[in-house]
Amino acid sequence: MPLQQALHQLEIVTTGEGFTDLTAQLNHWIASSRIKRGVLHLTALHTSCSLTINENADPRVLTDLSAYLKALVPEEGFRPINGLGERRSYLHDDEGPDDMPAHIRTALTCSTLSLSIDQGRLLLGIWQAIYLWEHRRHGSHRRVAIHAIGEMNSHE
Amino acid sequence: MPLQQALHQLEIVTTGEGFTDLTAQLNHWIASSRIKRGVLHLTALHTSCSLTINENADPRVLTDLSAYLKALVPEEGFRPINGLGERRSYLHDDEGPDDMPAHIRTALTCSTLSLSIDQGRLLLGIWQAIYLWEHRRHGSHRRVAIHAIGEMNSHE
Amino acid sequence: MPLQQALHQLEIVTTGEGFTDLTAQLNHWIASSRIKRGVLHLTALHTSCSLTINENADPRVLTDLSAYLKALVPEEGFRPINGLGERRSYLHDDEGPDDMPAHIRTALTCSTLSLSIDQGRLLLGIWQAIYLWEHRRHGSHRRVAIHAIGEMNSHE
Repeated sequence: MPLQQALHQLEIVTTGEGFTDLTAQLNHWIASSRIKRGVLHLTALHTSCSLTINENADPRVLTDLSAYLKALVPEEGFRPINGLGERRSYLHDDEGPDDMPAHIRTALTCSTLSLSIDQGRLLLGIWQAIYLWEHRRHGSHRRVAIHAIGEMNSHE
Repeated sequence: MPLQQALHQLEIVTTGEGFTDLTAQLNHWIASSRIKRGVLHLTALHTSCSLTINENADPRVLTDLSAYLKALVPEEGFRPINGLGERRSYLHDDEGPDDMPAHIRTALTCSTLSLSIDQGRLLLGIWQAIYLWEHRRHGSHRRVAIHAIGEMNSHE
Repeated sequence: MPLQQALHQLEIVTTGEGFTDLTAQLNHWIASSRIKRGVLHLTALHTSCSLTINENADPRVLTDLSAYLKALVPEEGFRPINGLGERRSYLHDDEGPDDMPAHIRTALTCSTLSLSIDQGRLLLGIWQAIYLWEHRRHGSHRRVAIHAIGEMNSHE
């Protein structure tokens, strides 16, 4: 079978800093694309949210992840990790104190992911889910490009 | 030549926090797939280990990387980087004090990589190697999905 | 249309720590490849610079990103983020005090990106640009592998 491709944009409404599990939507779209084996590429089309793979079982994992990243990139500015230097505020704050931290949190995580598709579904570990990670305080309308390249079922 | 694909899962036994160089295994598998030019996609099928590209020469680079990430995400909990706030412990500790730090270290590095294949081998810089980075204290059995899409040798 | 591929290496001269916007060069090369819809894979072929997607509008975003990452991974060594431990220097300093921090900054950001191509151009959000992020103090000659897989215009 020749390789084929399908491209779509997911629209996600976030309601504040935190995680939206995209896994079911992604598998649903893969099914509609009829690609049975291939690769799915995801791109977050924004600079203040990102894509991450993490645990799908205990919700406290997401609570800890969120608390950690907010402590690593606080709204009140940063200081060298070795303590050798003063606290520095962000220069860019056009959209408020959570603006620049959201850009930095995006840079420290991932804007693109590439995942295998096998048997018409994402090939993931048993505990893995794919999340959109909103880094702004308040929610937003977000778009994620999803692009599959692979082989379709020969019976369709 | 039409594009073709090959999908496999590498099994890696890690013996503790640290790095396993996958580069030779990846090139060996690419040779067996007979794909000469294309892209290799890697996905770590876990939420407590990750994939990274770093130096292949001086082993002290890996020692420093490991020490740094353990200091950035310590087992004893974290505090805002600007010092403006109290230390916070992890809520999720089902599998011990290294459980949640491993999830965070995974989120701060990469779970997927996509690399070019040229002339039947990974196209890498001279100092680059591909590592599985184990973030748990003790080793584990790990799986990495490896998925090549590309063109095979016309002579085979 | 069958899928086709094109592989090239961009050469970039950096002049010091900071960002080089690759977006226009990437779109120019995609046009020359004649691929209209597909995926573009980028790999930084070095272990002391990385690839990142961030804001293309206010230059203070890049100034803040740079200042933050230098504070997160300082040249003078690091200390646990919770303050529970002493400052530790880098073991690897063969090429000076900015050598090991550059490797760590690379590991905390991304060495590979995969982006959709649509209508002969990168599919990006309106505020997104693709940057090479130099992490060494002084500039260097850098190479980025760029690899497109997709469909060409049927009219050419």
